[in-house]
Amino acid sequence: MKLFTWSIAPNPRRVEIFLREKEIEIPTEDVGVPGKAFLKSKFLEKHPHRRVPLLQLDDGSYIAEAMAICRYFELQFPEPSLMGIEPQEAATIDMWERLAEGEGMQSISEFYRNSKNWFADRSIAGHTKSFEQIPELIKRGTARLGLFYEKFDAQLDNNEFVAGSYFSVADITTLCTVDFASFSNFGIPKHCKNLTRWYDAVSQRSSVSIR
Amino acid sequence: MKLFTWSIAPNPRRVEIFLREKEIEIPTEDVGVPGKAFLKSKFLEKHPHRRVPLLQLDDGSYIAEAMAICRYFELQFPEPSLMGIEPQEAATIDMWERLAEGEGMQSISEFYRNSKNWFADRSIAGHTKSFEQIPELIKRGTARLGLFYEKFDAQLDNNEFVAGSYFSVADITTLCTVDFASFSNFGIPKHCKNLTRWYDAVSQRSSVSIR
Repeated sequence: MKLFTWSIAPNPRRVEIFLREKEIEIPTEDVGVPGKAFLKSKFLEKHPHRRVPLLQLDDGSYIAEAMAICRYFELQFPEPSLMGIEPQEAATIDMWERLAEGEGMQSISEFYRNSKNWFADRSIAGHTKSFEQIPELIKRGTARLGLFYEKFDAQLDNNEFVAGSYFSVADITTLCTVDFASFSNFGIPKHCKNLTRWYDAVSQRSSVSIR
Repeated sequence: MKLFTWSIAPNPRRVEIFLREKEIEIPTEDVGVPGKAFLKSKFLEKHPHRRVPLLQLDDGSYIAEAMAICRYFELQFPEPSLMGIEPQEAATIDMWERLAEGEGMQSISEFYRNSKNWFADRSIAGHTKSFEQIPELIKRGTARLGLFYEKFDAQLDNNEFVAGSYFSVADITTLCTVDFASFSNFGIPKHCKNLTRWYDAVSQRSSVSIR
């Protein structure tokens, strides 16, 4: 078993935090080119998925997509639960994780991949076909990110964590989104006091304080 | 309990097929305005999520996002399994469902919401803030859809169903994507023979043959 990862990228980080929360240690290989915004050609040529995180299992098969990899480990090592156990709890976590992904992570990614020179013809990840940047998505991405912040700040008004009373994958995706956005100077707006309180608390966890 | 749905939309359909596969019957309310491309104002005003499917539970809380709703029922009614049981199986289904969502459903939605007049200032669903259409996304959406077809055709070369040997939520999302795309004349390309074989088989199921 091996986890292909990339130390500077937000999506592999979701899996890395998840594994540290569960104290699971597995072999990893960082396939990013140091100092560059792309993956090693050796990895890309061998793995048509062309994205990380990517988990290779001992039978040679692969699991892609951060949350699918997390689910693989959640089912084998249920404690501590990060994806919920009871139906309502698990569904609520799933909902908020997907909202964090779709409205948060995808928004800042949209800004990022359409504004940075090093993604000039790679505005969509995971394909050999080139996709030119679309300047209108820079503005749209940041506007959507603002709505994400408002929604999650409201949710955290009555909840200690994103999906309720305990730390879950919904917090992991939200945290990785905030840190990725902060890297581009789009951190939590000052008036989002619930989100700031939550961020200050979760970023102290040993699983996430490494970077 | 009540499922808010919209009979003509592809995302609520994912949940509807799922429930029929499990022979679960729950009260539903179609909140689409007949003949129009928007939801009833009464629903929108009361439900800030502003999207369907949306499941209201008996305690008054809500589960949004098609796959989160499916998970709620999967955990209560495990048979027949549509999200997998063993870790590798469940993770593989999760992976392919997310790929169908991210590379298929989101691609045709991108085309659709940026090309149709009735979405002129609503190119992003679920918000009161208006989002203007971006013409470049029409072309990008169809290009990405083409890559989705190639990837899933290759996957179905050695697999009876999208995520392996049995019907799962990965098939449901893929089917709803294909039918949504076909509605805009972007159905399965002729050379994708595995996908065509799969489509002909799954579209015969009683759970999906209703529309």
